Amino acid sequence: MTPAIDPTEQEVQQLARSLYHQAAEHKPSIFEPQDWLGKMIEWSLEDESLRIALFRFVDVLPSLDSAAEIGRHLEEYFAKVDHAFGGLVFLAQALRAGWLLAPVARHNVTRLARRFIVDEEPDALRSALETLRKEPAAFTLDVVGEATVSEKEALATQRRYLDLLQSLSAISASWPVIPQIDQGPDGPLPRINLSVKASALCARFDPLDPDSEKIVRERLRPLFSEAARLNAALTLDMEQYSFKDLTLSILRDLLEESEFQSQPHAAIAIQAYLRDAEHDVKELIQWARARKWRIGVRLVKGAYWDSEITWAKQKGWPIPVFLEKTETDANYERLTRLLLESYDVVDAAFGSHNIRSLAHAIVTAEKLGVPKYGYEIQMLYGMGEPIRQAIIRNGQRVRVYLPVGRLLPGMAYLIRRLMENTSNTSFLRQTYAEEEQIDKLIMPPPKKTITPSRKTARKRAAAVAVEPFQNEPLLDFSRAENRGQFAQALKTVRKQFARNYPLWIGGEELKTKKWLESVNPAAPEEVIGRVPVAGRGEAERAVVNAVEFFPEWSRTPASERAAFMFRAADIMRRRRIELAAWEVFEVGKGWREADADVAEAIDYLEYYGREMLRLSEPQVTQKLPGESNVYLYEPRGVAAVIAPWNFPLAILTGMTAAALVTGNCAVIKPAEQSPVMGALLMEILREAELPPAACQLLQGGGELGAYLVRHASVQLIAFTGSREVGLEILRTAYDHQPGQEHVKRVVCEMGGKNAIIVDEDADLDEAVVHILESAFGYQGQKCSAASRIILVDEIHDLLLERLVEAVRSLKIGPPEDPRNFIGPVIDAAAHSKIIGYLALGKREGKCVLEREAPTKGFFVGPAIFSEIEPDHRLANEEIFGPVLSVIKAKDFNHALQIANRSAYGLTGGVFSRSPAHIEKARREYRVGNLYINRGITGAIVERQPFGGLKLSGIGSKAGGPDYLLQFLEPRTISENTLRHGFVAPEELKN
Amino acid sequence: MTPAIDPTEQEVQQLARSLYHQAAEHKPSIFEPQDWLGKMIEWSLEDESLRIALFRFVDVLPSLDSAAEIGRHLEEYFAKVDHAFGGLVFLAQALRAGWLLAPVARHNVTRLARRFIVDEEPDALRSALETLRKEPAAFTLDVVGEATVSEKEALATQRRYLDLLQSLSAISASWPVIPQIDQGPDGPLPRINLSVKASALCARFDPLDPDSEKIVRERLRPLFSEAARLNAALTLDMEQYSFKDLTLSILRDLLEESEFQSQPHAAIAIQAYLRDAEHDVKELIQWARARKWRIGVRLVKGAYWDSEITWAKQKGWPIPVFLEKTETDANYERLTRLLLESYDVVDAAFGSHNIRSLAHAIVTAEKLGVPKYGYEIQMLYGMGEPIRQAIIRNGQRVRVYLPVGRLLPGMAYLIRRLMENTSNTSFLRQTYAEEEQIDKLIMPPPKKTITPSRKTARKRAAAVAVEPFQNEPLLDFSRAENRGQFAQALKTVRKQFARNYPLWIGGEELKTKKWLESVNPAAPEEVIGRVPVAGRGEAERAVVNAVEFFPEWSRTPASERAAFMFRAADIMRRRRIELAAWEVFEVGKGWREADADVAEAIDYLEYYGREMLRLSEPQVTQKLPGESNVYLYEPRGVAAVIAPWNFPLAILTGMTAAALVTGNCAVIKPAEQSPVMGALLMEILREAELPPAACQLLQGGGELGAYLVRHASVQLIAFTGSREVGLEILRTAYDHQPGQEHVKRVVCEMGGKNAIIVDEDADLDEAVVHILESAFGYQGQKCSAASRIILVDEIHDLLLERLVEAVRSLKIGPPEDPRNFIGPVIDAAAHSKIIGYLALGKREGKCVLEREAPTKGFFVGPAIFSEIEPDHRLANEEIFGPVLSVIKAKDFNHALQIANRSAYGLTGGVFSRSPAHIEKARREYRVGNLYINRGITGAIVERQPFGGLKLSGIGSKAGGPDYLLQFLEPRTISENTLRHGFVAPEELKN
Repeated sequence: MTPAIDPTEQEVQQLARSLYHQAAEHKPSIFEPQDWLGKMIEWSLEDESLRIALFRFVDVLPSLDSAAEIGRHLEEYFAKVDHAFGGLVFLAQALRAGWLLAPVARHNVTRLARRFIVDEEPDALRSALETLRKEPAAFTLDVVGEATVSEKEALATQRRYLDLLQSLSAISASWPVIPQIDQGPDGPLPRINLSVKASALCARFDPLDPDSEKIVRERLRPLFSEAARLNAALTLDMEQYSFKDLTLSILRDLLEESEFQSQPHAAIAIQAYLRDAEHDVKELIQWARARKWRIGVRLVKGAYWDSEITWAKQKGWPIPVFLEKTETDANYERLTRLLLESYDVVDAAFGSHNIRSLAHAIVTAEKLGVPKYGYEIQMLYGMGEPIRQAIIRNGQRVRVYLPVGRLLPGMAYLIRRLMENTSNTSFLRQTYAEEEQIDKLIMPPPKKTITPSRKTARKRAAAVAVEPFQNEPLLDFSRAENRGQFAQALKTVRKQFARNYPLWIGGEELKTKKWLESVNPAAPEEVIGRVPVAGRGEAERAVVNAVEFFPEWSRTPASERAAFMFRAADIMRRRRIELAAWEVFEVGKGWREADADVAEAIDYLEYYGREMLRLSEPQVTQKLPGESNVYLYEPRGVAAVIAPWNFPLAILTGMTAAALVTGNCAVIKPAEQSPVMGALLMEILREAELPPAACQLLQGGGELGAYLVRHASVQLIAFTGSREVGLEILRTAYDHQPGQEHVKRVVCEMGGKNAIIVDEDADLDEAVVHILESAFGYQGQKCSAASRIILVDEIHDLLLERLVEAVRSLKIGPPEDPRNFIGPVIDAAAHSKIIGYLALGKREGKCVLEREAPTKGFFVGPAIFSEIEPDHRLANEEIFGPVLSVIKAKDFNHALQIANRSAYGLTGGVFSRSPAHIEKARREYRVGNLYINRGITGAIVERQPFGGLKLSGIGSKAGGPDYLLQFLEPRTISENTLRHGFVAPEELKN
Repeated sequence: MTPAIDPTEQEVQQLARSLYHQAAEHKPSIFEPQDWLGKMIEWSLEDESLRIALFRFVDVLPSLDSAAEIGRHLEEYFAKVDHAFGGLVFLAQALRAGWLLAPVARHNVTRLARRFIVDEEPDALRSALETLRKEPAAFTLDVVGEATVSEKEALATQRRYLDLLQSLSAISASWPVIPQIDQGPDGPLPRINLSVKASALCARFDPLDPDSEKIVRERLRPLFSEAARLNAALTLDMEQYSFKDLTLSILRDLLEESEFQSQPHAAIAIQAYLRDAEHDVKELIQWARARKWRIGVRLVKGAYWDSEITWAKQKGWPIPVFLEKTETDANYERLTRLLLESYDVVDAAFGSHNIRSLAHAIVTAEKLGVPKYGYEIQMLYGMGEPIRQAIIRNGQRVRVYLPVGRLLPGMAYLIRRLMENTSNTSFLRQTYAEEEQIDKLIMPPPKKTITPSRKTARKRAAAVAVEPFQNEPLLDFSRAENRGQFAQALKTVRKQFARNYPLWIGGEELKTKKWLESVNPAAPEEVIGRVPVAGRGEAERAVVNAVEFFPEWSRTPASERAAFMFRAADIMRRRRIELAAWEVFEVGKGWREADADVAEAIDYLEYYGREMLRLSEPQVTQKLPGESNVYLYEPRGVAAVIAPWNFPLAILTGMTAAALVTGNCAVIKPAEQSPVMGALLMEILREAELPPAACQLLQGGGELGAYLVRHASVQLIAFTGSREVGLEILRTAYDHQPGQEHVKRVVCEMGGKNAIIVDEDADLDEAVVHILESAFGYQGQKCSAASRIILVDEIHDLLLERLVEAVRSLKIGPPEDPRNFIGPVIDAAAHSKIIGYLALGKREGKCVLEREAPTKGFFVGPAIFSEIEPDHRLANEEIFGPVLSVIKAKDFNHALQIANRSAYGLTGGVFSRSPAHIEKARREYRVGNLYINRGITGAIVERQPFGGLKLSGIGSKAGGPDYLLQFLEPRTISENTLRHGFVAPEELKN
C-alpha cells in the first residue's frame, strides 16, 4: 500500500513516469562511449579517483598542443590511479613516442567537446541551430570564452555579443515560424535568444567597486538596444553568489531606464540552490508588479555548488547554498509554483534535466491555468536529448541552452557539464547509468524543514573552555551593509585626524619634546596623527621596567596571559572596521587589504593564545616509576619587537602577542611610517587591562630599534623588515655585550624577490588574475609580493599581453575610494627608490607597461618590464613597489632554476596543470611558502604558516605551530620520587 | 563442596586457622591508633593519596627540629590531599604559630618510632631484650643508621657492631637458659645474635670494584672472630639485588678461610621475591654439602620490591623480582621445602608475618622430620605481636628481628616497615584491617606457571615498522660476565694503540703531512692513535663535496636516512664494549662513564632516527575543500659539527646524527683531545654505508672549527663546548659573509657552573652520595657537573663533614682499573688550569680537602673549598675539574638566590623534602635541567632533554622533541585544488 498522495502529486508522478518511459529508450549521447574519452567517462562513474584524474586531465587537455605533451599528461594523471588502466599508460607512451599523432588525439577531444559546444563560425552555428529547430527546439546562445581580465577583453566580449546578434539575425531571417517554439500565448516570440554574463563585460566585476555596476550597465545598453532592434531576447545569466545582488541590481536598474522600459524579452536566471533564491524571486515579482512590467525568469538549480561551498568554507562565511541536493529540488518546486503563480508578470523558463522537476513544473502550470506556451522548458545542448524529445512530444516549448565558442576557453564550461552529469546525485546519471528504480527517481523531494545555513561564524561562549581556533572571516563586501559601514568608518576616522597620542612608559604618561607626524601617503598634507618620539632615556626606562616586571609576568599563568590576548581580540573585533579605516589613511591600503590586516591581527591574538595554552602543559617525557620527568617551556625575558609599516597592525600585533603570551615583557616599536596603528594597538591592550609594564610602546626610527637590539638586558628580538636591517640586527644581537647574561634570540623575517612561474599548460585565466593580485595588490609593498614572473616560452607572449591589458585596466588613486585598485606607495623615499628602478628597468629590459599616476601623493603607476634576464638587478633586488619583471624560460625546469637563483626564498608560485611539474616544484622550489595555482600573498594564520628561507628569514613561521617556541626556552625537570624504597603504586605501573 | 586437598595442605590450613583464631583476638599495636599519627595511618589505608603524603611526611619528620618546621611540612604535604583533613591543617597552623610546642609533636613521632626501633643505649636495650625473652622470644639485632658513604663511617659501623657484641655479652651474661629459645636439637644456641649489612662496612659497596669484596671481608673478619669468642651468631642481611651475588660471595669466601671453618652460627638471608632465589639456595646447599658445613639461611620475602621494580625499569634491565605477590608466596613455600629438605646442612629460619606461610613451614618441617628446634620463625619487632604469641604458644622458637639505633637515621627502616604493612597485599593489613575471610587468607598461593621475567630489553625485529624508542640499557656491572668482557676489551684495545687513521674526504683517502697524536691522559707516554690533520684545502674540499651532495642527500627519503642511523646504532651495539674501552684510554673515563657514553650515542642514533620519521610526515594545517595546505620540514644545507672531548662519542654522534638524519650534509670535527673516537665514529658510519659525502670527518684544532664557522657555504653550526668558543662562534656565524645566501643557524651548548642546594630537611644520605657523583664523576669534567654546593646553615657542617670523608675514601688512579673512581683530567692545559684554581680557592675560601694525586699522568686530586662567597671567582667560573665550592646559605630562599646568581644556567639540583620548596625550585630555579633529590649529571636521551639557559646555551635541548627542528627549516605548501568548479568530493566534507 502506498500512502495517499494529493491529486496534483499523482499527476506529476504520472507525467514523470510517462516521460521517463519515452526517454529511457535511448541513452543520451554522453554515455555512449563512441571513443576512448567517452569510455573513460563511463568507467569513471565507478572509480572516484579516476573521475578526479579524468576531470583534471580534460581540464588541461585543450591547452596541450603536441602529442608528446598530451601523452606526458595522460601518464602523469593516470599513472597512479589504478593499474587496471595500463592501457592508458600504453596510450600515453605511444603519444610521447610520436607513434600516435597529436591530431588523432585532439580529434577525439574535439569530438567529445563538440557535443557540448558549437563552433561560433556562422555555418557551423546555422547547421546546429537548424538541426535543433527541426526537433523542434528553440535555442539560447551562451558565448563561452576566456575570463575577462581587462577592459580590452570586456569590449571584445561586448563586440562578440553584438556580432552574434547580427549574424543570428541574418541566419534566422529565412526561418519559417514553428508555433511550438516561436509562438507565445500573446503572439510571436523572438527567435533569436542570447544569454549574457555580466562579469564578461567588465575587467574586474567587483561588488566593492561601484563602477562595476555602471560599467556593466554601459556595456549592456548597446546590447539591449540592438536586441530590441533585431527582436532578440536577452537573458542575464547568474554566476557565483557574490555577484548575485550586483547582477540583479544591474538588470533592474537597466530596465528602469526609459529606453528599456518597453523591452519585453529581458530575463534573468535564478538559482534554486541558493538559500536566498525565494527572497530574490519574491522581490523581483514585487518589483515587476509595482511597475506592471513583464520579466523573464529562468529557474535553474545552479552550477557552482562545489565552488560556493569551497569558497564559503575557505573564507569562514555562511554557506549560501543548500547542502543537500534534495533541499535544492524541494526549493526548485517551491519556486516553480511561485513563478507560475506570478504569470501575470513573469515569463518562466524551467531549466533542468530532472524529469520529476520538469513534470512538476508542467503539471503545476496546467493546474494554475498558465497557457501551454506561457512558460518554457530549457535544457543544455548535448545532454539529456531523449528527455528533451519526450517533452517536445508532450507539446511543451523547449529551449536548448547552446554554448558557442572556441574549444579551449570553453573548457571551464565543459568540465562543469561533465561534473554535473556524472556526480552521484545527478538525475541524468541516476536515470541512465544506474537504472535506479523509477519510483525512487520521481518521488517528491522530502518536505522536511530546510536545514539552517551551516554558519561557520565564531560562536562566542561565556564558557571557560576555549574553543578551537577559527580564522576571523574577512568582511564580505558583496554585502551592501558592510560597504556602508566601511564608508562611514572612513568618515568618522577622518574626523579624528591629527590627534596627539601619548607616550606611556610602564603605565606612566611621559612628555617628550620630539614628535613624529604620520601623514596620508595619498595626500601627504593630511596629518593622520602625531606621536611622541622616545629617546634613549625613555627606551632605557622601558627596558628597566620590563626587566623588573618580568618575574611577575613570567609567572602569570599561561591561561591568564592568553585571556589578555582573547580580550584584545574581542576589542579589535568591535573596532574592526574603524581600525581598517585608519590603515586606509595611514599606509594607503585598499579596503579589502586593510580589512584583511585587521582580521589577521585578530587571528594572531586568538591563535597564539591557544598555542600557548597547548605549550603550557608540561609534557611527561617518559613514564617511569620512581622518577617524574617533565619537559616544559618558559619565557626568555625582555623582548624587543620591531615591526614594519606594510602590515601595520597584523605583524606588530602578531609579534607582540607572541612575545607577551609566552610570558616575555615586550618593548615594541612600530615603523615610523605607521605610528598611529601602533598607538591604536596600545590603546587596545590598555583597554584589555594588560599590565602596563608587560608591553610598552616606543615610537621612533631606526636608531631606537638599534638601541634596543644592542641592549644587554634584551633577550629576544622579533623583527620583520628589510634584509639589510635584518642582517644588521643579527650581527649586532650576537655580538655579546658587557653585562649580557644570555644569548639573544633573534626572530627575523626579511624580504623577498618572489617569483611566479607560469607553465605552458597553465590555466591562463587564473594565472593572469592571481599574478595581478600578487604583484600589484597594495602596490607590491608586501614581502610576499610577486616581483618576478617567469613565463615558459609557449605562453609568454599571450600571458604577457593579457596581463598588461589587465593592469592597464586598474584604477589608480586614493585607496579610500574603493574604485582604486592601486594606491600610493608609503612615502617619498619609497617613491623615489621605485622611480629609480623604473629607469633601471628601461635600461635592463623592455618596458611593456608604465602607467601614469597622480602627481599629488606618493603614487607610482604600475609597470611591467619584459626581457629581463636572471642576472639583471631588476630580477634580484627587492623593489617593494608596483614593478613587475618578466623573465622568459625555455621550459618548466629552466623556469624553476631561474626562480631558485634568488638569494631570497620567501614565497613562490607555480601555475601548472602537470602533476609532475607540480611535484617537482613541491620538492625543489626553495621558498618558505609555495603556492600552486593560486596567488602568492595573503597567507592565513594557522592555514599557511608564513616565513622564508635563505636570506628571507631564519626558518621562522609566523602563524605556525613552531612560532612560539622561538619565544620560549625549554626546561626539563626530573624529580626522584622514590623515598626510602617507597614509590606511589600508580607509578609502579608505568 | 571444597575440592579434595592433599593431607599436608589440609594440615597447613588447619594450623593456619588455629593460629589465626588465637591471633585475631588482638590487633597488633601498629593498628591501635593511640595517637594522631597512628590515626592517620589508620585513615591512610583508605586513601591512597593520603598514604603517599603520609609516608613522605614520616620520611622527613625526624629531620625537622622545630614545631614551626613540622607545622610547615604538615601543611605542605597534606594541604592538597583531601579537604576532609582540615583538622591537619589546623594542627599545622597551631604548630607554626607556636601554640603547640615542638616537643609535643616530636614526642608523638618518637612514640610511634620506638614501637619499631629500640634505643641502642644499654639500659633501653636490656629492657627491650628481657621483655622479649619473657614471651619467650629470641632476638637478632639489626643496627640501623645512616648510609655508609666513607671509610670513616664504615669503620665506625664496624666499631658499633663490635661494641654491640660486647655490650650484649655483658647484658646476656646473667640470663637463665630458656629451652624454647636457647636450645637447638644438638645443644645450646648462642643467645647473642646480630644481623649485619655488608654495604654498611664499605664506603662504596660496588660490584664493579674488586676491592669492595676484599674490604668487606676485612671488616667482617674481626666481627666473626669476636662473635666466635663471645659465642654470638651472625647473619649477613640481604639488600638490593645488585649487591646479592657480591654478598653471597663474601660470606662463602670468608667461611672458607681457615679461621672461620668451624664457625657454625653464620647465616645469610635469601629473598623469596627474587627470581634467582631458588638457584641461589640450591647453589648454597651444594656448596655446604660439598664442604660438609652447616650454614644458616634466613628465608624472607624481601623488602625492596618497589625499589627493585623502579630501578630495573629506569635502567631498562630485566626486573629481578616477581611481579605478583602470590608468585613470591608460592616461591617462599617452594624454598621452605628445599631448605627443610636440606636440614643436614641448613639451619633454616623463616621470616614472615604471613600465617599461611608460617603454618606451611611448620607443617612441612614436621612432615620432613625436622626436629622442633631444628629451625625457627623470625618476625619483626613491633609488628604482628598476636601472631608471634600464637606461634610461641604453638611451641616454635621465634626470633624477633630488632632494629636498634637512633631515630633519625632509622627512618628508612621505619618507612619500609610502614609501607610493607599497609600495602594492599600485606598479610598483616588483610588480617586485621580488612578482616578478610580467613579461608581466603590461608589459601595456598596459586601454583600456576611463574610469569616470565618482563624483559625490557629491546626486541629487534626484521619487520619494517620501527619500534618505539627505548633507551639502550647500561651494562649491569653486578654481572661477572660484563666485568669480564670489559676487562678483556681493554686488553684487546691496548693492542691497537698507536694506529694511524686515514683522512677521507668525500670517500677519497687523502694524505696530509701533519699528524695529531692522541695520548692516554693517565699515561701520556702512551699514544692511543694518530690522525691526519686537515688543512684549509681539505676543509674547503669537504665543504664543496657537501654542497654538491646536499641536493641528493636532502632528497633521500627520511626513512632511508633514519635507516642509516639505525644501522650505525646496530654496529655500535655490536662494538659497544670495545668503544667504551677506547674511551677509557683516550679521555680517561671510568668503565661506567665510558659505557654510558656509548649507550648515549646509540640512543641519539635511535631517537633522532625516530624523531625524523615523525617530523617527515607533512602536517595538514587546516582541512579545507579546494585547497590543500601542508606544513613540512626540510634540511638546511651543510652543517659543521664541532664536538667536545668529554663525551667523545655521545655528543659527536648526537650532533652528527641530528644533522644527517634531517638531510643536512655534515662536516664534523671532533675535539683535538679525542680524535680517535671521531675516527671510530667515521668507521662505523662507513660500515653503515652512509654515502661518503653526507658526512666527512676533519681532524684538527680550533682554527679548523673557526674556518668552518665562517665559511659562506656552511648553513648550520652545531657546537658543544666552552662559553668563550660558543660566543665567538655565535658572533662570527651571524656576521654575514660575502656570497652567503642564507642566515646561519647555530646550535650551541656551552658550559655550566652548576649548583646543588641542600635544604635543611634533605635526606643527607642521598645528598652526599649524589653530590659526590655529580661533582667528582669523571673528575668534574662534565658541563653538567656540580661545581657549587649551597648548603643551608643547619646542615652545612654535618653534610660537609660527611662529604669530605666520602671524597677522601675515593680511589685515584688510571681508570682502566675499576677500583679508581677518580681518573686523570684530559690534558696538561686542563691540569695546570685546575691547579691554578686550587691556589685561588685557598685564597678565596678554606680548603677542607685536597687529595694527593699520582704525579705521572694528568691527575688532580679532588678538592673541596668551604667558605666560598657567591661573588668569589670560584663560585662563578667554570673550572672543569674535581674542585667543589661550598657556599653557606641562610635558608632555602637564600640558597636559591645564590644558585641563580650565576651567568650560567645549565643544570641545577635540590635536595629537599619540603613540597613548597620543591615547587619554588621548579618555578624559579633558572636552569635548563633541574634535578630534584637526585644527581645532576647523566641526562638520558628522551627522558631528560638536555641543554641550558642563560650563557649555557641557546635554549636547545639535545635528546628532546624540539632538537631536530633546529636542523630543519619549515615550508608551507598551498595548492589550489579547485579546477573550474570541480572539487574532489572528499574535500567538500572538510
